[in-house]
Amino acid sequence: MTANRQVLLKSRPVGEPTVDNFEIVKRDVAAPGDGEVTVRTMFLSLDPYMRGRMNETRSYAASVAVGGVMVGGTVGEVVESRAPGFAKGDFVSGFAGWQEYANLPAKTLRKLDPNAAPLSSALGVLGMPGLTAYAGLLDIAQIKAGETVVVSAASGAVGSVVGQIAKIKGCRAVGIAGGRVKCEHVVNELGFDAWVDHRDPELFKSLKTACPKGIDVDFENVGGAVLQAIWPLMNDFGRVALCGLIAHYNDTSLAPGPSWMYLLARRLMVRGFIVSDHMSRMGDFQRDMAGWLREGKIKYREHVVEGIENAPEAFLGLLKGKNFGKLIVKMGN
Amino acid sequence: MTANRQVLLKSRPVGEPTVDNFEIVKRDVAAPGDGEVTVRTMFLSLDPYMRGRMNETRSYAASVAVGGVMVGGTVGEVVESRAPGFAKGDFVSGFAGWQEYANLPAKTLRKLDPNAAPLSSALGVLGMPGLTAYAGLLDIAQIKAGETVVVSAASGAVGSVVGQIAKIKGCRAVGIAGGRVKCEHVVNELGFDAWVDHRDPELFKSLKTACPKGIDVDFENVGGAVLQAIWPLMNDFGRVALCGLIAHYNDTSLAPGPSWMYLLARRLMVRGFIVSDHMSRMGDFQRDMAGWLREGKIKYREHVVEGIENAPEAFLGLLKGKNFGKLIVKMGN
Repeated sequence: MTANRQVLLKSRPVGEPTVDNFEIVKRDVAAPGDGEVTVRTMFLSLDPYMRGRMNETRSYAASVAVGGVMVGGTVGEVVESRAPGFAKGDFVSGFAGWQEYANLPAKTLRKLDPNAAPLSSALGVLGMPGLTAYAGLLDIAQIKAGETVVVSAASGAVGSVVGQIAKIKGCRAVGIAGGRVKCEHVVNELGFDAWVDHRDPELFKSLKTACPKGIDVDFENVGGAVLQAIWPLMNDFGRVALCGLIAHYNDTSLAPGPSWMYLLARRLMVRGFIVSDHMSRMGDFQRDMAGWLREGKIKYREHVVEGIENAPEAFLGLLKGKNFGKLIVKMGN
Repeated sequence: MTANRQVLLKSRPVGEPTVDNFEIVKRDVAAPGDGEVTVRTMFLSLDPYMRGRMNETRSYAASVAVGGVMVGGTVGEVVESRAPGFAKGDFVSGFAGWQEYANLPAKTLRKLDPNAAPLSSALGVLGMPGLTAYAGLLDIAQIKAGETVVVSAASGAVGSVVGQIAKIKGCRAVGIAGGRVKCEHVVNELGFDAWVDHRDPELFKSLKTACPKGIDVDFENVGGAVLQAIWPLMNDFGRVALCGLIAHYNDTSLAPGPSWMYLLARRLMVRGFIVSDHMSRMGDFQRDMAGWLREGKIKYREHVVEGIENAPEAFLGLLKGKNFGKLIVKMGN
């Protein structure tokens, strides 16, 4: 039997989580059941949505139980298979959660070709964050060439892809990020047209300057002060693809949203969405994204943390914007 | 020359308007220009959107200038024509505003058949309010049979049609109105499934009882406390057709909206709309509505005020929900 280190939800946070809300335990790995595969986790994705799963209150998916393994997307290697089509040594992406080994139903796994792209990219640009950007821009916001697209958390796993797809589709891409380094990265490395630092005391004014024709599409990842700055700049018939509200995930009461008078007078559309409702687009996305990567039209950056024992602290940093690029835990087991 | 009484915007209101914001003047009617028709106003429609036109700030349409004639939809009779296709004695609907006579470009007029329906219905159930309900439900909210549709200002010109179309389309229609008389009217006369009084101190609880399966579509005319009660009851993938915010039209600062956490977690869609963007649906609407009226599936109620001199006070009452049914001024000139 192999020892399996797991990160459990020890207690539910009230407001900002701390490392004390997590517990690391070591357990044995059971044999896979029929139709299951034992996967050794190689990379664990850390994403803002996980904060919502730590709460008891209803979100779009079930909470993690207290004492349960934290949920999460992973890439790993098959070490034992009791499912047709999967063999030892295969690489797969799936949802093993924060643990070194897991028995997973084969039907929840996607096989990866290690020669096609770096394996970890299945957690980022070629995975859920990439699909989130793709479905949000093309299906929810329905961007058109010539429009101005603003994205918050612009250097992050989703935001960085949003701006680059917007450029591919002929839009003006404006990125909002925290601090000069991330801001310059999205323009100089990723090819956005302009950046705005959300720490700028003149945020609204700077955003207005960066969007001389107003904002047609807001790909919203943040909420709070960033959204307040964006809102009055929305053009008639503007759309908001609401993907995340990281500024509010630690709130202990519901913060109000912006005035609906703008929604009415400017005929805006706001639509919340969750990538798991858009899995039917995975095929289109994989095809397009693979092509864009080959052509060098999409670049990505990973922020890699080593060892599962560092996952809780890395996750807490993610909620504060401390990461720079797609946050991934390299397990090393 | 004929004397023409007009209601002008005398001054811009701050907060709640008063009769002192209006001025009634008497002017001569000029001869129509080429392509124009002189129309004697018979009925003037009073609608909540007019409050926005009294402001200086940008809304979805130009403000009324101070000293200008108040805007408004009208039904009238042609008294002189310099446009092909229009003759003296024809009945037309158009936008003469708050005045007894107007020279209007023929291309802005729609000819009415007085034998097909009462002329005043072109300002209500067969006019803009009816089209607003139709486009909002079918195109914006995209209602489906079996869904629960809630509409505020339910006994009003738009709301009353919303509930009845929802019923025709196989939905559960829940109306929110002010006071027992209006509430019972929407159920007993118009065939809604349930009513809730917005003055009910237990508004949220009563609404929850009226919507045992939650709310799929909110046709929002009001905002404020009514929207606050609706919001937590919205189901996953619910839609809000945002048509009006009468609770906020007198606000002197922007009131916040409801929390976006619901929008995200439940994948809600909110879309503001204005009927004038949906004129391409007028043909479909007229065909369907004429059929529903013939079949007795749609009923309507008018609140008629006599004489242009009473228009300002009637309009102020409309903003407070004092009318019961579509508010119309019968000019009597």
